[in-house]
Amino acid sequence: MPTESEFLKWLYDQQTATPGVPVGVGDDLAVLKWGGSSDLLLVGIDQVLDGVHFDSSKHAPRDIGRKAMNRNLSDCAAMACLPVAALVSVALARGTSIELAKQLYVGLNEAGGEFDCAIVGGDTSAWDGKLALTVAIIARSDGITPITRAGAKVGDHVFVTGPLGGSLASGRHLTFTPRIALAREIASTGRVTAMIDISDGLSRDLRQICRASGVTALVDASRVPIHADADGLEAALHDGEDHELLFTATPEFSHPSCTRIGTIIANESPTVLLEQEGRRTELPDRGWMPRW
Amino acid sequence: MPTESEFLKWLYDQQTATPGVPVGVGDDLAVLKWGGSSDLLLVGIDQVLDGVHFDSSKHAPRDIGRKAMNRNLSDCAAMACLPVAALVSVALARGTSIELAKQLYVGLNEAGGEFDCAIVGGDTSAWDGKLALTVAIIARSDGITPITRAGAKVGDHVFVTGPLGGSLASGRHLTFTPRIALAREIASTGRVTAMIDISDGLSRDLRQICRASGVTALVDASRVPIHADADGLEAALHDGEDHELLFTATPEFSHPSCTRIGTIIANESPTVLLEQEGRRTELPDRGWMPRW
Repeated sequence: MPTESEFLKWLYDQQTATPGVPVGVGDDLAVLKWGGSSDLLLVGIDQVLDGVHFDSSKHAPRDIGRKAMNRNLSDCAAMACLPVAALVSVALARGTSIELAKQLYVGLNEAGGEFDCAIVGGDTSAWDGKLALTVAIIARSDGITPITRAGAKVGDHVFVTGPLGGSLASGRHLTFTPRIALAREIASTGRVTAMIDISDGLSRDLRQICRASGVTALVDASRVPIHADADGLEAALHDGEDHELLFTATPEFSHPSCTRIGTIIANESPTVLLEQEGRRTELPDRGWMPRW
Repeated sequence: MPTESEFLKWLYDQQTATPGVPVGVGDDLAVLKWGGSSDLLLVGIDQVLDGVHFDSSKHAPRDIGRKAMNRNLSDCAAMACLPVAALVSVALARGTSIELAKQLYVGLNEAGGEFDCAIVGGDTSAWDGKLALTVAIIARSDGITPITRAGAKVGDHVFVTGPLGGSLASGRHLTFTPRIALAREIASTGRVTAMIDISDGLSRDLRQICRASGVTALVDASRVPIHADADGLEAALHDGEDHELLFTATPEFSHPSCTRIGTIIANESPTVLLEQEGRRTELPDRGWMPRW
């Protein structure tokens, strides 16, 4: 939508360079220096909204809570950092049962607990509105330089960490596991140059890396791993909420859990190209995202 | 409401002591140790919801943005720490104009900017719901030990930093200035023992200090400063969103900007008493808070 992209562009333009903030708005998490510590502080925020990211009439509150937390933990994976603590704000529809509210927190707590990420603060209100959960995440670099979206270089290879597509239709978006351990493992090789987690769909998220890095990605259609839940290649290319990692790495990189799907190439302006049966076409940005 | 307090009690019971988190859920901000740094990391989250904390049909979006940020900055004041950075998530009603969205951010940015607090990350979505803004705040102790709600002792005096009441009715809840500078000044005396900002009303917020500290406060009705906007003493005691500081300090403490309103006394169980015309009665908890 033009208004939304116009708004986001405007938003980024508002940001001024801030001392002590090496990475600000526009990546999966912001990176801050803290005191004299070598441990970088990474922070981010992400909301899940009824009717957009979940359906309160259909999905279990515990799963909704898990998803709200896991989306933020997946942002930690995208930066190859370790979650430390989370803050949770919940807007409950007035008249919500205490049991439902508890189940939301059980899900949030469970998902965080799997990565030793404690909920250290929160805010709960009731309103004449729909259910909304917002999680802010506090993470640390712990010896691994955070991987941003901006480091892809010509000649790098493009990888994904698992099969794509059909996450929303199958309900997998509620049950995925954030790829934190794998992210830390691959980032510690020093060969990963840019990374993002696939939340809006491969076509859109790869475009984010290309824009941030000022490069073009050439995706080999025959290499894109299609999930059993997915309705073919189109779904794998454009469906969102897979929460697999999408990253670029130098040509020496390989890992049994990572599938190479393409290459970063020289091009006049940053974009994403799809090579299919010998033809190269621009991959349209049809990633999933709520309409403005 | 019984369900809400039951829920909050349940919520606190879920928390387990976490190494590196000296203060967790239940204070204005959580306090975390960071690496070997002497600078403590303080984090919190707070939401403002259409129809609860503001009225989108009446209030300017810029003021709504300012309020969302200032509530969090007021939490920093309550802990006597310095804001560093903020994360913002906004749920926009579908069809919201880009101009309105920009004005929200202008207000958020302005309010943060007054305290050198940069917005370093965010999340914006549109939904078939009402406008909701959530801000997470990152702050640092910067040489002053954070003041919690839990340090009040028998013999301490009780203070407020300004006249109370009528904030919601007059619209002052949209335009207040977080008392960060004053909080830092009084905390640096080493005499402040417990502190909170008045968001839910004096009666409720003083009860929070008393519960957390295990003490009873005796408030002298004749000393409570009543704001010109307020409808008498009742409004000063129970209206919310003043965002003045409410704190206890040792008897030696005094400051020209702070009004002493009472004393911490010995009592069997923690509560708040009001002394008026020679009679002591329990001050009912009628603080403002959205009904569940």
